[in-house]
This record gives sequence, C-alpha cells and structure tokens, in this order.
Amino acid sequence: MSAPVVEGQPLAPGAVLGIIGGGQLARMIALAAADLGIASHIFAPEPENPAFDVAAAKTVAPYEDEAALARFAEAVDVVTYEFENVPAATAAFLAARKPLHPGAHALAVTQDRLSEKRFVSEQGLTVAPFRAVDSLADLEAAVAALGRPCVLKTRRFGYDGKGQVKILPGTDLAEAYQAIGRAPAVLEGFVSFAREVSVVAARGADGSFAAFDLCENEHRDHILAFTRIPAQVTAATEASAIEAARRIGAAQGYVGVFAVEMFIVGEGASESVVVNEIAPRVHNSGHWTSEGAQTSQFHQHVRAVCGFPLGSAARRGRVEMENLIGDAALRWRELLAEPGAHLHLYGKREARAGRKMGHVTRVWPEQG
Amino acid sequence: MSAPVVEGQPLAPGAVLGIIGGGQLARMIALAAADLGIASHIFAPEPENPAFDVAAAKTVAPYEDEAALARFAEAVDVVTYEFENVPAATAAFLAARKPLHPGAHALAVTQDRLSEKRFVSEQGLTVAPFRAVDSLADLEAAVAALGRPCVLKTRRFGYDGKGQVKILPGTDLAEAYQAIGRAPAVLEGFVSFAREVSVVAARGADGSFAAFDLCENEHRDHILAFTRIPAQVTAATEASAIEAARRIGAAQGYVGVFAVEMFIVGEGASESVVVNEIAPRVHNSGHWTSEGAQTSQFHQHVRAVCGFPLGSAARRGRVEMENLIGDAALRWRELLAEPGAHLHLYGKREARAGRKMGHVTRVWPEQG
Repeated sequence: MSAPVVEGQPLAPGAVLGIIGGGQLARMIALAAADLGIASHIFAPEPENPAFDVAAAKTVAPYEDEAALARFAEAVDVVTYEFENVPAATAAFLAARKPLHPGAHALAVTQDRLSEKRFVSEQGLTVAPFRAVDSLADLEAAVAALGRPCVLKTRRFGYDGKGQVKILPGTDLAEAYQAIGRAPAVLEGFVSFAREVSVVAARGADGSFAAFDLCENEHRDHILAFTRIPAQVTAATEASAIEAARRIGAAQGYVGVFAVEMFIVGEGASESVVVNEIAPRVHNSGHWTSEGAQTSQFHQHVRAVCGFPLGSAARRGRVEMENLIGDAALRWRELLAEPGAHLHLYGKREARAGRKMGHVTRVWPEQG
Repeated sequence: MSAPVVEGQPLAPGAVLGIIGGGQLARMIALAAADLGIASHIFAPEPENPAFDVAAAKTVAPYEDEAALARFAEAVDVVTYEFENVPAATAAFLAARKPLHPGAHALAVTQDRLSEKRFVSEQGLTVAPFRAVDSLADLEAAVAALGRPCVLKTRRFGYDGKGQVKILPGTDLAEAYQAIGRAPAVLEGFVSFAREVSVVAARGADGSFAAFDLCENEHRDHILAFTRIPAQVTAATEASAIEAARRIGAAQGYVGVFAVEMFIVGEGASESVVVNEIAPRVHNSGHWTSEGAQTSQFHQHVRAVCGFPLGSAARRGRVEMENLIGDAALRWRELLAEPGAHLHLYGKREARAGRKMGHVTRVWPEQG
C-alpha cells in the first residue's frame, strides 16, 4: 500500500499529508486523514498543540525556518494548512517542493481583505460597500462616502473580531484609526442583514465541486456560537449562495475545502446574498458535517488535497452545532449524557475565556 | 481541563488512555479517544504499528519488560487493550498500578477456551457440546462421545481460524492432535447452524449496559468478510442473544466493550442461540457502528473505560460492513467513489494475503 497503486495518480493511502498549523482544525484534518490511511505530519511553531497528539510526525519550528521547512517538504507528499495566515514566503517555499493545496492564489487573495473584496466583486458577486484606507484622510473620505455606522478593518491578520473597530455616530476617526494600529485597512459600509450564513464546499483538482447545505450561523462576541442547518432561507437564496461559492472556487482553481461567509439581506422574495469573507480552509461552520453529512468537511478536504474523488455532501437530517468556548467545555459530562449529542473536544489543556475548546453536534430526523 | 473537573470522577478530558497493542483496533480506539479529548499512549513490541500514527505517545517494548511497563503505567490514567492475549503477568503488573479495563477476570476467562465454555455454561447459556483434551486418549474418548464432524481447538492463542483443526469422518486423530502441537485443547461438537451472529455491547463501571443491534456475520476462510445489520432472526431471538451478552457482562463485572459470537440454530419459532466465543474488546463485527450507530463501538469503549456515561447504541439504518482483506484494499479508489460508502484504512504498509487492511461501511435508510 505504500506506493501509489493507480498509475497517474499522485497519491494513495500510505501517503503523508503535511499540515501547516497545529490547532483543532489541523487535529480534525489529521483524524480524518488517518481514517483514510493517510499519515499526517504537523508543522507548527508551538511546542504543544492539539494536533500533535494525533499526528504520525511533527516539526516544531518557526514558519520562517527554511531548513525545517525543507526537511518537512521532503518528508511529506502533499501540503495543506489549517489557517489562511501562513506567511506567503512559507507557502511559496513549500509550493516549490511539493503540491500545496489550496494554492498560493487562495492564500494571497484571502490574506488581504481588500484583495478579497475586489476578487469577489470581479466574480459578479455582491459585497458590502468598501473603500481602501491607507491614511486618516482616506478614512475620513471613506466614512463620508459610506456613512455611519460602518466598520474599519485591518487588511491583514483579522479573525474572530480581532483587528476591527466599529464606527458609530460619535466615534472619533483618529482614535479608531489608532485602534487598528494605523495599519493598511478597509472601511466596510453597514449591511443590515437578516441572517448570517455560510457555504462550506469542496473543489477537486479535476474541477469537481460539492457544497454542503447552506448553514446559518449565530455569533456571540464575534465568535461563532451556533450553526444550524437547514438555514431559514428560500430555495432560490440557497441556490444563489452555493452558486456564489462555486464561482469563487472555480475562479481560484481552488483545491480543497473552503468556506464563504455571507449575509442574507431582505426577506422572502426580496432575499439576497452579500458575500462577507472567504476562508481557504475547513471552517468552524462546517463542523456539523462530522455527524450531519455523509462526508465530513475534514474527510472531504483530505479527499480533495490528495486527489481522491469527493464524497457525498448530502445532509443526514436537521443539524445543530454548538461551540464550546472557554468554561462551556466543563459541561462535558452533561453533554456526554445527553442522548443524541456528539461531543468533540480538542485536547486543549487550559480552558481560557474565548478559547474554542470543543463542539457538540446534534442531529434530528428531518421534519416532515 | 487537565485536572478532573467533576469531583469523585476518576477521569476527565485531558486524561491519558494507555492501550496495550498497536493494531487497527488500538488505532480506532485512539482516534475515538482523541475525539473526546483523551490522548492515547500505545504499548506494543513492534517498532511499526498502525496505532502509533495517531497516538500522543508510544512505548516500544516486549510485554514482559517490567521497567517499560512501570514507566507506561506512570504515564497513563487508565489502561485498556485491543486483544485478549495480553499475558496475564502483564495485565496483573499494570492492574496493580492503574485501573485496567476490562479487568483480569475477563482476560483469564477468555484466554482459555475451556474456562470460557465453562463460564458461559455456568450463566445458564447454551454452548456447543465440548470436552477437555489433554492427551490423545482424551481426544479419542471425546470424539467417540461427541461424534464426527467436530473441531479440535487449542485452549489458548487461537484467532481467525488459527490453532484449530476440523475432524471429519476420515481424519486421523493422532495427526489432528499433532497439527495443534499437542497443546492443551478442547473438542467442540459440530453445531449445524443457520446463521452466525454477534452481539457487541458495552458495560459501564456503574453496571449500565448498552448493546448494539444483533449483527449477522459472514466468514470466508475463517476470517470475517461481511457484517450485516439487522440480522435475519426473530425479535425473540435477538432479545435472547442480547440478554445472553448482558448476563455475560454482568457476571464478569465487565467494564468496556465486548463481543459475543453466537450461532443461530433452527428457524422461525424454533430458533435458538448457541454462544460460541467471547471477545473482551472492541470487535471486527462492531466496525459497522462507526457510521451505522449513534455511538461507535470505539467511542463507547472509551466512554466505558474512562468512566463516562455510555452513549446511545441506536442504529441509523440498514448497515453493511465489508472487510478489506489483502489485495481487496487496492480497490480503495473505487470505494472512495462509491456513493454512500465509508472507507476506513488502517495505514498498514503492506497488503499481505489474509491481512485486514481496512473496511467499508454502507448505510441505507431502514426498509418499510
């Protein structure tokens, strides 16, 4: 089983998947890979990491350590990552040595909110009104153009509400600009949305595409708290959301699982979709698929990056995913005793406030 | 999360599960443990093993190496095993240091076919007629008593048809006795069975009991080839099979998942159950539970040995499990492309004949 057994196919069970990053997403990718006979090798700078406990090999080194990266590339057959902020130089270094999926384009576009918004617009999709901000003067002009309330976000390295500040009627613009470190930024106009949803989908190297059903997300303090499926939108809205994801994946020649976070504005016949953000990786809003879909997003990602056929994305019922953040994980015993609840814990040693410690999925038969 | 968070409970997520043996069963236990935030430490003598790729730690040492066993016991919070032939001294050494589940009684009984048959009979359950064989004279007398055909089996270390020889009308008894190495043995009378079935069940330290639905097994060359659920038996037969398993577990004060292989003799109203063998561990005939039941046998085993509440054993539909033995695993790509098939590969490097390389589960909606 160690050598490729189908000619012309780059990978087979027995191959080694390299994963950049060692958090819970890497951990769950590694668990799915193991299920398919693929060993994982984790590359991460932290000496302790959730993914190390389930990986065949690990490299603990900074992302800039080229000697370590070269040894890592030598030891693996394909490289993927669990987060979109992999330094561009690291990605390029690895891509020159082994297949990197998703590719450099996906990283470049999604690491920069401005590029991302421009890219999405170019696909004929709707985004919130936005302006580039490279100075206080830019910010003043942008706020004048888009009106208040609006949100100022750094172009790079934002996640879970970090690197952003809301601009309300009384907000001082100089202070707001200072609050994001006067970094290159983008100002986004306010979208009065009815719902937050996301499409989690996979694209294979052969262009195959499989989207999970549209899911509806509930955030608390900028962190995902619940995902519920099906989303309460019309069939036409769900179809257009999935078509938006398909177009985004195709335009990038994307390989792997990705998520597109969207807002639903309006209601009923006037519902429409506004694209908010692309995540070039497995995504928290796809965790429900472990029990709620025929193929989990983690298995699907491994299939895609290894060049295997994509699995069925069909849903198994009505599904809810609840994130366990901080102390919520201390409810583990009660959750283990809850009939039908599926508990997943990430093996993190410390339950800090705001830290994602695990999640729970619940699946019910579809309502008649 | 690292310390027990519920008073009086011995274990919590963050604990370390020690597993004796490093094959595919250990691998799948470790994967389930990880899902529940439990890290695994594998103890096995072979330098390469399927379970090592998904474990947080490993000890490579002979089962008789007391220094290595002592260090292992020190490093883990609870010990379990993937095979019933753990040497008794090893089990006793570990049990003196850390909780060992299932316990020494289960090992002692199931390591010896004769003790096992006596134990099962003592529970008021039916086994095939049997006689102890410690000499050729014993064998001759036993064959005379039970009639031909019958089967001579070594008392210890038999699995997948190894350590046994069929005695047909023309079989020379001296040769048969030689064929099993003149080891302490048991002669079993022939059971004309209609079906082979098994109950895979879990018992918690608190006496809680959860059986998966009765499954029907198809062997080829003494190796399990297919498991299908539901078994084609009457509801009364299924109930009495599960009751037999419950009684076996209770009589042993068993903690963990175990399997009871049984024969179904007769048909319809005259159907009855003959207990064949007990496996004090997760079992190949329970692999269907990964996709086919609310809780997989691996998750259930981890729950039981860690003292967590048992999960629901409810079935999700009509299920089939197909073992991939030897070259069958080379069908992996076709199986990955089969809608609804769930492929599991064990990461073994070499596909030898007769070697279990992986399995596939298929789940369909329940009929009618």
